[in-house]
Order: sequence, then structure tokens, then C-alpha cells
Amino acid sequence: SLIQESPEGDKYIDLGKKKRATVRSFKGSTFVDIREFYGDTEQSMKPGKKGISLALDQWEVLRSSASAIDELFAAEQKKK
Amino acid sequence: SLIQESPEGDKYIDLGKKKRATVRSFKGSTFVDIREFYGDTEQSMKPGKKGISLALDQWEVLRSSASAIDELFAAEQKKK
Repeated sequence: SLIQESPEGDKYIDLGKKKRATVRSFKGSTFVDIREFYGDTEQSMKPGKKGISLALDQWEVLRSSASAIDELFAAEQKKK
Repeated sequence: SLIQESPEGDKYIDLGKKKRATVRSFKGSTFVDIREFYGDTEQSMKPGKKGISLALDQWEVLRSSASAIDELFAAEQKKK
């Protein structure tokens, strides 16, 4: 499975380059937190300052905009 | 189209709640920057501190993990 679990029990997807998408609940709402981590070992990884939490509705917009974002990437590559 | 353009010419998707996914190039690489903005009018919106930039390969992992993230959201909702 793509889904991994931190020592604290948080479920996340490893995006590479020490970035993770972690789904967690906070004050009764669920968020996906896309964030940089630091640390030398899997067990010692800590969340860094760079990151953002998206509520379900914002995640759904991002998810459904995937093709548009792909197009923007392609347009930027073409400029080079 | 979902794609909007800032006064600076950056192309972005409005995720709601003043969050945007902006695709831009920097030092020869292209990133999608998912970030909070602040400001009262469309013309005066400025990027805030909360956000993260994903390179194309990290974006592609996030994109292809969309179903797994949806499952994690559903699992968190069930806990309530």
C-alpha cells in the first residue's frame, strides 16, 4: 500500500524528498497536511515549518484540478 | 476554465478559503506551490507564510495517491 504510518500513529503518503501528505483530525475536522519533514531516520522524522493543511473541500478542489495543474506544468516546460 | 491568473501573471487554481495552487518556474525547475494568501481584494492578494512547493515528481506522487488520500479521509470521518 502507498499508506504508511508514523511512530505517532499518523497515516501518510511519502511524496519523496522528505515531504509527506498526512491525513489527520484536529478540533473535529479532518485535514490533509502536505509538509516537509526533517530527521535522519524514519523513527526520528519531525514535521518542519514548510507545509499547509487542506480541509476536505479544498483537497477535493485540488484533486479535481489535477489535469489543469498537469497542463500548467506542461506549459511551463515548453517555455524553456 | 479552472485556471486563473494573478496580476503578476502567475497561473493558479483557487482552492477556496484563500488557498491557491500556483504553477511557476524557479531556477530552471517548475513547481506547484500550494499556499495561503491574504488580502481584501483580488488585486491585492499576497502569498502568506503557510505553504509548500512540490516539484513535478512530488506532485505526480500526490496526484497518483489521490484515491489513497480519499480513503484516509473516509477512515477519519468514520472514527467520529
